[in-house]
Amino acid sequence: MALIVQKFGGTSVLDTDRIKNVASRVGKHRLRGDRVVVVVSAMGGVTDNLIRLAGEINPMPSEREMDMLLATGEQTTISLLAMALHSLDLPAVSLTGAQAGIVTDGVHSKAKIQNITPKQVHAMLDEGNVVIVAGFQGQTPDGRITTLGRGGSDLTAIAMAAALKADLCQIYTDVDGVYTTDPRVVDSARRLERITFEEMLEMASLGSKVLQIRAVEFAGKYNVPLRVLSSFAEGEGTLITFEDENAMEQPVVSGIAFNRDEAKLTISGVPDTPGSALRILKPVSDANIEVDMIVQNVGEDNKTAFTFTVHRNDFKRAQDVLRGISTEIGAGEVGGDTKIAKVSIVGVGMRSHAGVATKMFEALSNEGINIQMISTSEIKISVVIDEKYLELAVRALHSAFELDKSGVVEEGM
Amino acid sequence: MALIVQKFGGTSVLDTDRIKNVASRVGKHRLRGDRVVVVVSAMGGVTDNLIRLAGEINPMPSEREMDMLLATGEQTTISLLAMALHSLDLPAVSLTGAQAGIVTDGVHSKAKIQNITPKQVHAMLDEGNVVIVAGFQGQTPDGRITTLGRGGSDLTAIAMAAALKADLCQIYTDVDGVYTTDPRVVDSARRLERITFEEMLEMASLGSKVLQIRAVEFAGKYNVPLRVLSSFAEGEGTLITFEDENAMEQPVVSGIAFNRDEAKLTISGVPDTPGSALRILKPVSDANIEVDMIVQNVGEDNKTAFTFTVHRNDFKRAQDVLRGISTEIGAGEVGGDTKIAKVSIVGVGMRSHAGVATKMFEALSNEGINIQMISTSEIKISVVIDEKYLELAVRALHSAFELDKSGVVEEGM
Repeated sequence: MALIVQKFGGTSVLDTDRIKNVASRVGKHRLRGDRVVVVVSAMGGVTDNLIRLAGEINPMPSEREMDMLLATGEQTTISLLAMALHSLDLPAVSLTGAQAGIVTDGVHSKAKIQNITPKQVHAMLDEGNVVIVAGFQGQTPDGRITTLGRGGSDLTAIAMAAALKADLCQIYTDVDGVYTTDPRVVDSARRLERITFEEMLEMASLGSKVLQIRAVEFAGKYNVPLRVLSSFAEGEGTLITFEDENAMEQPVVSGIAFNRDEAKLTISGVPDTPGSALRILKPVSDANIEVDMIVQNVGEDNKTAFTFTVHRNDFKRAQDVLRGISTEIGAGEVGGDTKIAKVSIVGVGMRSHAGVATKMFEALSNEGINIQMISTSEIKISVVIDEKYLELAVRALHSAFELDKSGVVEEGM
Repeated sequence: MALIVQKFGGTSVLDTDRIKNVASRVGKHRLRGDRVVVVVSAMGGVTDNLIRLAGEINPMPSEREMDMLLATGEQTTISLLAMALHSLDLPAVSLTGAQAGIVTDGVHSKAKIQNITPKQVHAMLDEGNVVIVAGFQGQTPDGRITTLGRGGSDLTAIAMAAALKADLCQIYTDVDGVYTTDPRVVDSARRLERITFEEMLEMASLGSKVLQIRAVEFAGKYNVPLRVLSSFAEGEGTLITFEDENAMEQPVVSGIAFNRDEAKLTISGVPDTPGSALRILKPVSDANIEVDMIVQNVGEDNKTAFTFTVHRNDFKRAQDVLRGISTEIGAGEVGGDTKIAKVSIVGVGMRSHAGVATKMFEALSNEGINIQMISTSEIKISVVIDEKYLELAVRALHSAFELDKSGVVEEGM
């Protein structure tokens, strides 16, 4: 008798029909004898509607009150799902985040889970219930309602699975697993049967929307076995595993991730003296702008050029900050480009295989695609290219690393 | 610096514009230096919408889960009202029923308040906040969310005022006070400046929709000074006071109440022996049917007739029960009539004044209205008449007791 935590997101509980559908999925596991905890998000559209109401009243609503407001979204879903399970004659009870014992810090709108005391959850499971927990929310030690920020329901599910020492955490989404790349871009994209936490982390942070990065980090940290699968179709989905399992079968590259969310900024003619990078990046980070890739070119005449990427929404602000800095430190022109894309190959296998970067650059060069920036880590290589070549680059890389072929791909075989 | 509890119902917080309107009303008191606690209901229509959603999923939803679901309605309003106060630069915080320390029994959907520990409310008032509390809801000692049933928000406000020893509890509604009778029936109906708790109790239980009977009982029991006034118009409303204040000025009759919700049942040919009444009424009450007026006529041949009224919704069931009883005890025919109305005159003054009943019956007789049943208490006289004469009867009585004249009316003056 396994203990399973299942998470269903907003599109899976869009309306009462879909809630009934979720109930019958949950019911199957319960009738098989599993102990089941279900974590749900707000019904699709509900959160946006609440945000709209708040905006009509106050353009800058207090974060404490926004959390109070938004928490009603998940509370609505949990009670409706319990009713749906009852109509299948299955015992079920709903719990808010607070009732489920989820204690967070006091940072409203993006609280962090501090600990979970799932006493109520255990007691209700012991009574034979399916226990339904509101995702995305918790309570501070002094009793304020908080929300966990984007992707918070995934986090609730994984943290609850960790606290309950569950055998498996299933994340139901509108896709049927993790793919080698976006199937809308590459027809031959293939569902991965398994992927490591580290790879998943790189995929998530690079724009694959399946799971939020915080949730994957959390699952990895607490060794929660995770499976991503579809709410709407049958299938095994993708198991997210630990690296050492089946290491022999590891392909070199597991997937191609990409995003168009970033913009590039360059400040040239920077005096090449110690502390230049700090003088440029500190004011940017002080303005709460997150920097992703950073490249510093070696220049001539003791001058250097400094290039980095930020989220496109922060581009204008970052440009203003940079112009101020440029005057201050006696640097030159501030350039920028929003028409860029980032493409990355990800795979734990590349650690032990030389020549992966060469193969990547060759594939891009063969298509005449110029590389503007390069950044590498142990398990990924990212490049920034002109946005217009994005699809071409993804297809070329997907084919070069033979990701369309099922089974295991080993370099040189 | 007075401590005031203000309650705003569903029509007062129908949409975001009305919530802003409530905020500015609350703000006036706050800026005058009062300490203010505000209790609000769900936005008009929200509760019905939630009930509809539940009905789509389960025709007989669990009451525990209904409470979980419905509680989101008030939680939405409290956070929006806090945001509206913030945009007027007034410090405000919202609290759910549970957070405000409202502890109830475990009877879901119609829980009773057991006690209130308003520690949080006090702390937040001390910090200078307007404290906004979700009406209609509470929490059991073991942490389940409950709702208080119809009119529950009035009850929350009054109970909170009692627990805080507030100077005044203001109930804002869509009428501007308590009237001598329904202004839609009698043009010259007049707003009362004050009414006693006992009178209000009779008015409430007889169909005046201003305040729920439980709320009035509660206010009377805990001596909470209560004022009913309009959310939409300026004005003093009606103060609900204790009897002994200004007793000299008490008019004989304060108002005319009426309802059309009842139906009449008669069982004739009942053997006139001890215990007959019990044998008839016990099965009715065992079937959970509430009986209002009861009349037993003295009959002939040791037979008597027994007449009582029930809510119209219970008429068919009561008829079935009575038919069974009639066979059992050897009584006669079971008759019934749903086309009746109950009209009552209410006033603490009638206690010490003879001739009030005579004056009432005379007024009805002058209009040719036949009285079918009579029931009296110390401060009210109710009659059952044919439904079609209801408006005529109310107008005749309103005029006979000179309720259209402002100022104090003393019999014989």
